[in-house]
Amino acid sequence: MVDSSPLATWNDGAAKSAILDFVARVTDEGGAEFVPPAERIATFDNDGTLCCEQPLQIQFYFAFGRVKELAAKDPTMTERQPFKAVLEHDYSTLFGLGLQALYELAFATHAGVTDEEFIEVARGWLATAKHPKIGRLFKQCVYQPQVELLAYLRQNGFKTYIVSAGGADFMRAFVDEAYGIPREQVIGSSVKLRYDAGGDRVSLSKLSELNIFNDREAKPLSIGLHVGRRPLLAFGNSDGDLAMMRYAKSGLGPRLALLLHHDDAIREAAYDREFRLSPLAEALDKAEDYGFTIVSMKQDWKVVF
Amino acid sequence: MVDSSPLATWNDGAAKSAILDFVARVTDEGGAEFVPPAERIATFDNDGTLCCEQPLQIQFYFAFGRVKELAAKDPTMTERQPFKAVLEHDYSTLFGLGLQALYELAFATHAGVTDEEFIEVARGWLATAKHPKIGRLFKQCVYQPQVELLAYLRQNGFKTYIVSAGGADFMRAFVDEAYGIPREQVIGSSVKLRYDAGGDRVSLSKLSELNIFNDREAKPLSIGLHVGRRPLLAFGNSDGDLAMMRYAKSGLGPRLALLLHHDDAIREAAYDREFRLSPLAEALDKAEDYGFTIVSMKQDWKVVF
Repeated sequence: MVDSSPLATWNDGAAKSAILDFVARVTDEGGAEFVPPAERIATFDNDGTLCCEQPLQIQFYFAFGRVKELAAKDPTMTERQPFKAVLEHDYSTLFGLGLQALYELAFATHAGVTDEEFIEVARGWLATAKHPKIGRLFKQCVYQPQVELLAYLRQNGFKTYIVSAGGADFMRAFVDEAYGIPREQVIGSSVKLRYDAGGDRVSLSKLSELNIFNDREAKPLSIGLHVGRRPLLAFGNSDGDLAMMRYAKSGLGPRLALLLHHDDAIREAAYDREFRLSPLAEALDKAEDYGFTIVSMKQDWKVVF
Repeated sequence: MVDSSPLATWNDGAAKSAILDFVARVTDEGGAEFVPPAERIATFDNDGTLCCEQPLQIQFYFAFGRVKELAAKDPTMTERQPFKAVLEHDYSTLFGLGLQALYELAFATHAGVTDEEFIEVARGWLATAKHPKIGRLFKQCVYQPQVELLAYLRQNGFKTYIVSAGGADFMRAFVDEAYGIPREQVIGSSVKLRYDAGGDRVSLSKLSELNIFNDREAKPLSIGLHVGRRPLLAFGNSDGDLAMMRYAKSGLGPRLALLLHHDDAIREAAYDREFRLSPLAEALDKAEDYGFTIVSMKQDWKVVF
C-alpha cells in the first residue's frame, strides 16, 4: 500500500515532526501563530540541498563539456589554466580556485548567446547527460524527500523559491520539471546581460562579466531585492546558506531553518567540512545556538533519489 | 444593473477588442496560438500606467515630506540644493535634475533603516496621505480600468508584474492592496542593502547608494534577471517603457504591447512629450512600426479612478 500521508518518504523523527508541527501552526487560522499565505515564503538552496553536488555541482559538468568544445577550436587552451585543469580532470587545482572562480569560469564559457538560446542549449544537454557516479540523468539526481517537502509546502500555501550560488539561467532550464518551481522563483548567480535591439527582434545577450555571485551574505540580500520579504522557512546544507538561514530564523514569530547533513555514504555521500568547494562547518557547529533543525540524510530520509 | 462582463470599465473599441482577442487566443487550448500558463507573464509600468504621476510620481511626495523632517533638524539644508528646491516647491529646478537624480534624492532620504522598517513607515504614510490635486488617498489614485485588467489577466492564468523606475520597496508597501499584486512581483529601482548580523536578529539595512535605476533598457534587463522569461504582454505609458514593450512585442508567437496615452485633461491630465520627468515621444511616434496598441484614456476608459 502506498503511504499517502504528508512526507511519506521521511522517517518519523525530530526533523519530520518539526516540519509538520511548524506547518500546522502557521496555517492554523484560529491559532496564535497563524501566518497569512502572502507571507509564507520558503527558500531552498539547490546544490546539496535539493540535488546531488558530489563530486561536483551539476552545472560544472555542463560547463566543462563546453570547455572541451572550445578547446577543440583553440588548442592553446590545453596549456592555459584553468582550462588545462578542466581538460585534465585535475580536481585538486580546480577545487583550489574556490567556488566563485569556478562559477566565473563556467559563466565565461556560456557567454555570447541570448538568455533564451542558453536555456534551450542547457535543456538539450540535460535531456541526455548522466551523472558519472549515480548513473541517472543529472536532472533526476534530485532528492525525493525534498521534492515531496516542496510540494507539501505549496499545498499549504507556501511559495517555494530556490536561492542558490549556481547560475540562475542554468537552474531555470530544469527546476519546473525537477521541483515544480517556476523559473521566476529562482534566485541565483548571474552574469550581466546586454540589451540588443539591432535586428527585428529585441534580445538579451549573456556577457561574461559577473553580475552577482549569490553565496553567503549575498543570499539574504538577494532575497531582499527579489522577494522583499523575510522567508518563513529556509533550508540549506552548507556555510554558504548560513546567512540565509539566520535571516529566516531570526524573524519575528514562528520560523524554521533546516540544515541537511550529508551523512549517508551508502546511499549518497558522507561529507561536511572537508568539501572544499562548499564546506559545512560553522552552520553545523552553531546549529543549536541559531536554532537550526538538523536533517540527517541517513536517519531522516526513507529514500534519497 | 452592474456590468459583469470582462473589462466592464473599458469602452468598446480597438484597444478593448485587442486585449480580449489576445487573451482568447493565448488561452484557447486547442488553438494554434495557445500559450501554457507558465509562460503567461504580464509586465506593467507603475507611475502613469497604473496610477497617477501628475504633477509628480507619488513616491516624491513621500520623500519630500522626509526632506522637511530632516531640514527641521538640520537647517543648513534649506540653503543647499537639491533640498532647497524641494522645500521651496521649485519644480522647475527639480524637473531639471531628471528622473534618476530625483529618485536618488528620494532614496537618500530613506537610507539608514531596515527594509522591513521602511515598508512600515511607508504604509503608515500611505494610510492617510492625500493627493493634492485629486483629493483622494495616494494609494487610491490608481486607474480602475487597469485594476480590472490586472484581475482579468490573472483570471486567465497570467502572472502580473510591476516593472517600474520607482523604488521597489515603496511600491511593495501598497501594491497588494491597490492592485492585488504580491510584493515579490515588483521589480523596481533599488538601493544597495547591508547584511547586519550584529545583534540577536539578522536584518537588511537600506544604504543610500543606488543598486539599480530601473528605467528604459534596464527594464528588460531586470525582467531577464528576475523572471527569466520574455513577457507575453507589456503595458507602459512613456519612453521609459519603450525597451520593455519592444522586448515583449518582438518575442516569437502572439504578443501584446499596450501604450497608455494621457489625453484626458478633464478626468485626469493630458500630456505626453512635454512631461520632462518621463516624456512620451518616441514610443508614440513609432507605435505603428513597433506594433504597439495605443490606449486612449479619454476614449477607451469609462472611468479613470
